[in-house]
Amino acid sequence: MLVNGIPRRTVWIEPDGNSIGVIDQRKLPFHLDTLVLRTTADACHAIREMIVRGAGCIGATAGFGMFLAALECAEDGLEGREFDVALAEKGAQLCSTRPTAVNLAWAVERQREAIATVASAEGKVALARELAQTIADEDADFCRRIGQHGLNIIRDLFYQKGGNSPVNILTHCNAGWLAFVDFGSATAPIYAAHDEGIPVHVWVDETRPRNQGARLTTWELGQHGVPNTVIVDNAGGHLMQQGLVDLVITGTDRTTYTGDVANKIGTYLKALAANDNGIPFYVALPSSSFDWETEDGCAGIPIEQRCGSEVSVISGSHGSASPGAGHLATGEVEVNLVAKGTAVANYAFDVTPARLVTGLITERGVCAARESAIRDLFPEMRRGR
Amino acid sequence: MLVNGIPRRTVWIEPDGNSIGVIDQRKLPFHLDTLVLRTTADACHAIREMIVRGAGCIGATAGFGMFLAALECAEDGLEGREFDVALAEKGAQLCSTRPTAVNLAWAVERQREAIATVASAEGKVALARELAQTIADEDADFCRRIGQHGLNIIRDLFYQKGGNSPVNILTHCNAGWLAFVDFGSATAPIYAAHDEGIPVHVWVDETRPRNQGARLTTWELGQHGVPNTVIVDNAGGHLMQQGLVDLVITGTDRTTYTGDVANKIGTYLKALAANDNGIPFYVALPSSSFDWETEDGCAGIPIEQRCGSEVSVISGSHGSASPGAGHLATGEVEVNLVAKGTAVANYAFDVTPARLVTGLITERGVCAARESAIRDLFPEMRRGR
Repeated sequence: MLVNGIPRRTVWIEPDGNSIGVIDQRKLPFHLDTLVLRTTADACHAIREMIVRGAGCIGATAGFGMFLAALECAEDGLEGREFDVALAEKGAQLCSTRPTAVNLAWAVERQREAIATVASAEGKVALARELAQTIADEDADFCRRIGQHGLNIIRDLFYQKGGNSPVNILTHCNAGWLAFVDFGSATAPIYAAHDEGIPVHVWVDETRPRNQGARLTTWELGQHGVPNTVIVDNAGGHLMQQGLVDLVITGTDRTTYTGDVANKIGTYLKALAANDNGIPFYVALPSSSFDWETEDGCAGIPIEQRCGSEVSVISGSHGSASPGAGHLATGEVEVNLVAKGTAVANYAFDVTPARLVTGLITERGVCAARESAIRDLFPEMRRGR
Repeated sequence: MLVNGIPRRTVWIEPDGNSIGVIDQRKLPFHLDTLVLRTTADACHAIREMIVRGAGCIGATAGFGMFLAALECAEDGLEGREFDVALAEKGAQLCSTRPTAVNLAWAVERQREAIATVASAEGKVALARELAQTIADEDADFCRRIGQHGLNIIRDLFYQKGGNSPVNILTHCNAGWLAFVDFGSATAPIYAAHDEGIPVHVWVDETRPRNQGARLTTWELGQHGVPNTVIVDNAGGHLMQQGLVDLVITGTDRTTYTGDVANKIGTYLKALAANDNGIPFYVALPSSSFDWETEDGCAGIPIEQRCGSEVSVISGSHGSASPGAGHLATGEVEVNLVAKGTAVANYAFDVTPARLVTGLITERGVCAARESAIRDLFPEMRRGR
C-alpha cells in the first residue's frame, strides 16, 4: 500500500540478495524506519520483539528467516541430512518466538518440507529464497482477494443504508497491510471499498497494551486516505448500542477448522457486543491462518502471556525528550502507568467462539464460521495439514 | 480507609470551618496531595477537572460546594428569595460540570430545597454546612452497609469454591473509597471480606482513557493490603472464559429505576462477558445513584463526551523528567499516543442493560435489577424524586 504516495511492503529481500529488509513497526507512527535482518537470530529477534508483527507478516518473515537459516547451514558447510537437521533446529527457534500465531509454524514447516526435497546445499538455499518470496507474494495475493470478497459485504451494507452515508466499520488491533505483506486482512475490504468510491469510516480500537490500533492502523489508513477515528478499547460496545457501527471486521492469529477465532486480546468482547446488537462480525484471514488440528479454540489454542511491562509502561512521543532507547522513535519516551510494585498480568490473545462470528472472509470467498462451510471452501485440507 | 496506616476520607471541612479539603486524585498513585476549595468556582473546577471523581465523591463535593455557594451568597449580603435565586444559579453551575453522574444534581437539589426552608442568611449557611457534612457522612455510612450486604455474596462464593482458594473479583474503573467519601461501593464488599479473613484477589481493569483502575483502585486496594493485579480492559473476557473470575462488581454513575446501569465506558462489555460465561455481575450503589425519572437507560441517560486529548495523551511517571505541569505529580510527564492530526472520540460512559445485571447491592440490601425489586427496597421513592 501507499506510504507518502509510494507503494511499500512490510518485508522484502534486500538488493544484496542475502539479507531481508523489514519496516520497524515499533517506531510507527512517529517514525518510518527499516531494519536489515542477516541471520536466523535476527529474524527471531524481529518476531519476538515485535519489530514485525501480525499473522501474515510473521509468517512471511519466518519464511525469509528460513532462507537466512539455509544460508547459515550452507556457510557452515553442511549438506544432506545434516543440513536438514540443523535447519529444522533453526526452524524450531523461529517457531518458539510467538506461540499463538499459526502462520509462523506453517511457513517454517512449508520451507522445511520443501528444502528437504533438494539434495545440494546450493539447491536448498536457492529453493529457500524462491519459496520465501512465493510465501510473501501469496500472502499479498491472498489479501488482495480477501479485499475483493469483503468488498461485496461493505457494498451491500452501503446500499442497505440508503447509499448516501459512510459505512462505519470497527476494527481491533492492526490486521492491516503492516500485519501482512500487503493489503492486510481486515483492512483489505476497507481499502477495496475506499478505492471503489464507497465512503467508509473506520472506528479504530487503540488496542492496549501495545496500541497497534492507535499507532499502526490509524497510520496506514491515514496514508491511504481512509477516514478513521481512534477510540479506547472500552468504547465499541457503546458505539454499537447507539447505532454508530455497521460492521466489525477483525483479523485473526489462528482460526480453528471449526471457526473459533484467536485474535488480539479484547476481540471476544467486541464480538459479544456485535452479537448483542445484531451487527455483523466478520473475521478476515488467508487460509494460512487456519489451524487444521485444533477443534476447540478456547481449550486448545495456547494463549501467549507477555511481559507485564507492556501493560505497566507505555511509550509515546514527547517534544522535549532526548532521543530514547534503541527501539523507540526519536522523541519517544517511556512512562510508568502504575506505581512501583503493582502486580500486572498480560494475556496477549483471546478466543472468540465460532457462534459469535458472522462469517470468515478468505482468499477463496466468504463462508460461515463452521467446519462444514470451511471445508467446502478448502476441501483439500485435512486434519494434520 | 487506611493510607499509610492512617484513616482518610476523600473530602472534608478544613479546620477553618469555611473551606473544603479534597485529595487531588489526578496525582495518585505517584503522589498523595490535597487541595483546598474556597469558592463555588473551586468546587466546579475540582469536579470538572476530575480532581475529585466518582459518583459519591462528586455528590459529597457538590454538597460541600453548595455550602461554599451559601457562604458566597451571605458574603454578598443576599437574603431571603434573592439568596435562594443566587444559590440556585450557583447550584446550576455545579450541575453543569459533569452531565452523567446523578449524585451531583441530587446533592445540589437536596441542599437547595433544605436551604430554602430557613429564613436568615446566617441560618442558611449553618444549615448548608451541616447538611453537606450529613451528605458526606450518609455516603460513608451507606457504603459501609453496601459492604456488609455484598460480603454475603463473596462469603457464599468462597464456600461454594471449597473454602480454600481466593475469590477472584473483577472490577472496572474506580468505585473504591476514592470515588465516595469512604469504603467505596464496588470495593466495600471486597474490603469487608478481606477484613473478615476471606481471601480475595481483585482483577483491576486499567480503565482507559484515564486509567482510574491502574492508578486509583490498585493504590487504594494496595494501601489496605488487598491482593490485586492490573489488566488491560481487553483482558476480562479471556479471564472469564478461562475460569479465572468468580464475580464481577462495578459501581455506577447512574442507575435507572428499571435497573439499567450507566457506568464508566467499557462496563457493558464486561457485563456481556460475565453473562456469556455464567459469572455473577453485581453493581454496588448507594440509593443516591438511582435515577427515578429515566425508564430506558440506553435511550435516556446522557453520555458525556470528553476531550479527545484524554485518549491521545497519557501521563505517567518518568524518572528523568523535570517536574511537570500543575496537575501532574512530580516526575510525571505527558506523552502523545497517536500521530499529530489523528481523529479521536472519547465517550466517557456506557449503559449496561438491566438484563445483564445479576443484582444491585444497595445500602438496604441486594435486589434484582428490575423495577419491582428496586421499589420493594425503596418504597418511598416515586418518579420525580
